[in-house]
Amino acid sequence: MIDSDYMKLALDLARNTRGQTSPNPMVGSVVVKDGAIVGMGAHLKAGEGHAEVQALKMAGDDARGGTIYVTLEPCSHFGKTPPCADLIIEKGLSRVVVATTDPNPAVAGSGIEKLKNAGIEVVVGVGREDADKLNEIFFHYIQTAQPFVTLKSATTLDGKTATVTGQSKWITGDEAREDVHRYRHTHDAILVGIGTVLADDPSLTTRLPNGGKNPIRVVLDRRLRTPINCKLVQDRKAQTWILTTDQASNEKREELMRLGIEVILLPDDSIETILHILGSKGITSLFVEGGAEVNGSFLKAKAVNQVITYLAPKLFGGHSAPTAIGGQGFTEVEDAVELEIEEIVKIGNDIKVVSRVKGSD
Amino acid sequence: MIDSDYMKLALDLARNTRGQTSPNPMVGSVVVKDGAIVGMGAHLKAGEGHAEVQALKMAGDDARGGTIYVTLEPCSHFGKTPPCADLIIEKGLSRVVVATTDPNPAVAGSGIEKLKNAGIEVVVGVGREDADKLNEIFFHYIQTAQPFVTLKSATTLDGKTATVTGQSKWITGDEAREDVHRYRHTHDAILVGIGTVLADDPSLTTRLPNGGKNPIRVVLDRRLRTPINCKLVQDRKAQTWILTTDQASNEKREELMRLGIEVILLPDDSIETILHILGSKGITSLFVEGGAEVNGSFLKAKAVNQVITYLAPKLFGGHSAPTAIGGQGFTEVEDAVELEIEEIVKIGNDIKVVSRVKGSD
Repeated sequence: MIDSDYMKLALDLARNTRGQTSPNPMVGSVVVKDGAIVGMGAHLKAGEGHAEVQALKMAGDDARGGTIYVTLEPCSHFGKTPPCADLIIEKGLSRVVVATTDPNPAVAGSGIEKLKNAGIEVVVGVGREDADKLNEIFFHYIQTAQPFVTLKSATTLDGKTATVTGQSKWITGDEAREDVHRYRHTHDAILVGIGTVLADDPSLTTRLPNGGKNPIRVVLDRRLRTPINCKLVQDRKAQTWILTTDQASNEKREELMRLGIEVILLPDDSIETILHILGSKGITSLFVEGGAEVNGSFLKAKAVNQVITYLAPKLFGGHSAPTAIGGQGFTEVEDAVELEIEEIVKIGNDIKVVSRVKGSD
Repeated sequence: MIDSDYMKLALDLARNTRGQTSPNPMVGSVVVKDGAIVGMGAHLKAGEGHAEVQALKMAGDDARGGTIYVTLEPCSHFGKTPPCADLIIEKGLSRVVVATTDPNPAVAGSGIEKLKNAGIEVVVGVGREDADKLNEIFFHYIQTAQPFVTLKSATTLDGKTATVTGQSKWITGDEAREDVHRYRHTHDAILVGIGTVLADDPSLTTRLPNGGKNPIRVVLDRRLRTPINCKLVQDRKAQTWILTTDQASNEKREELMRLGIEVILLPDDSIETILHILGSKGITSLFVEGGAEVNGSFLKAKAVNQVITYLAPKLFGGHSAPTAIGGQGFTEVEDAVELEIEEIVKIGNDIKVVSRVKGSD
């Protein structure tokens, strides 16, 4: 086995923690001594040991003189745990292979520097592309202080979310709906508009065969029209945050807060401000599930990073049938959001398209 | 080589004549004697020899005592050419392998019957599925006396055909546009609404690197608003038929007819009547290229057999941005047209989805 094989294992270890490490990145680590793996680890949960700590614990005294593979540059500063670079030096490793550097430009390279100064051989860049992709959400958050935004839509193949009379239940099949719940599981927060709350009374929880983590539920509700008896207010299954403006009544605000709902008063209701506030409250990833007006606002603000499109094998037709992305839209073709298609798959009887917004990271 | 291998070759011979045999089906034939191919042929053009005639001509005297493979039941009646069943008997073949029977229920089996009565061994059904698929358009036409209808749309991934201000040029890329021209090449006729003629002044010809056959251009134009100076009237590159109603002026009708345009007066403007008339005039396949109102009419009438959807990696957004299939649409989800997805491919930067309307053949 060569460096890239061990790093592949470290990346696999990291990848399997998706959804459980936020606001920290997913990191994996492998320790090798005399051609044999002596330690493996991954960062499992914020506040618990980093990947290197776990792998070195497993390795014990075998670490001395060995090589440690880690998918992200070891930290060099005291956070909730002591710096991993110090631990690597202390354990006497002779070589460190790193996939990618710290995304925070202010500290990038400092862990590597510390290791080199201690006389350890350091190799950087093995598996970098995979490592960067793996933590794209975390990297985006560290670099912009705003959540990575994924917009989801589900339409018929002719782009409709409902018939002309507004009928819309079960456009996509079971498999596509379960896939949506996997995205809920891996996102810090899910966002909908008040229109969706009033129309559907959704619970916005993660319902997977093996359970799953519920995202924080965020509602855009300028005038605080969220009904007191709706599921998001009453079910206590996950936190609910309502973003509102000074158009809302103080009375309603207090009533909701008494019920445990976090009501956040926006200085203005621009998407930019919303993302700034959510970022400052530690939301690294946001799953936008519409409706059409909210989707349109995010699109128009060019605030979307990733788009997940489900297309059902149906045609509704109709000039006035609603589409997934409404709002004002772009007037010029040149201004439209351009996508890079990353994946096209059949999911049940539906089509799923994963795409990235060009020029966003 | 076994029967299915020879039939595969016969199917390949047939497949390569797509676009040139209408209103006849594509048919291929192979003659085998003592384990060696002694003849190959395909029906190349209506009015010319059938596939069996071509293959038997190549085989010459070697045909005697051999096996003939043919993708469609040999004909038993006098048409533009003498019956192929008689020729096979006359040439002394001892075995006939047929993929599928004549689609015309009135004559299905009569060619096979004739061969059996002459003491020839006949095997039916080798490669039937491929043979039926190959000539689905012809079979549909023979059984319904109406053209097989393919609806084409090209939209952004959010289902829009233009921005909110109507900008629409070059939504899809070069590869997708070339693919559209391949469909024009293989269809007897292409149909658009007067709205498209007035908005775009299209030529609706086939423009492929190697040329291609132009379909007959059919315009739905109730009030005969087609401009005298438009390309469809002036360019003489292909026949143009205008379907109109008694709302049109006689004067305009005569003016268009003097210019070589066929103006057809519809007893009513239902899609059913239109398909009936086109079928009676020998149109076996119809490529519907919209716009939205025409597409919506075909959808609502459940008159579509196949749907070709091109999706460009762009998002326009906009509540009022136009979609590909307009009209009244279906009000109930249960009434919507259900599709069977047959193919999803990346074509250039775009996505192409080929689907069949469930319950239509």
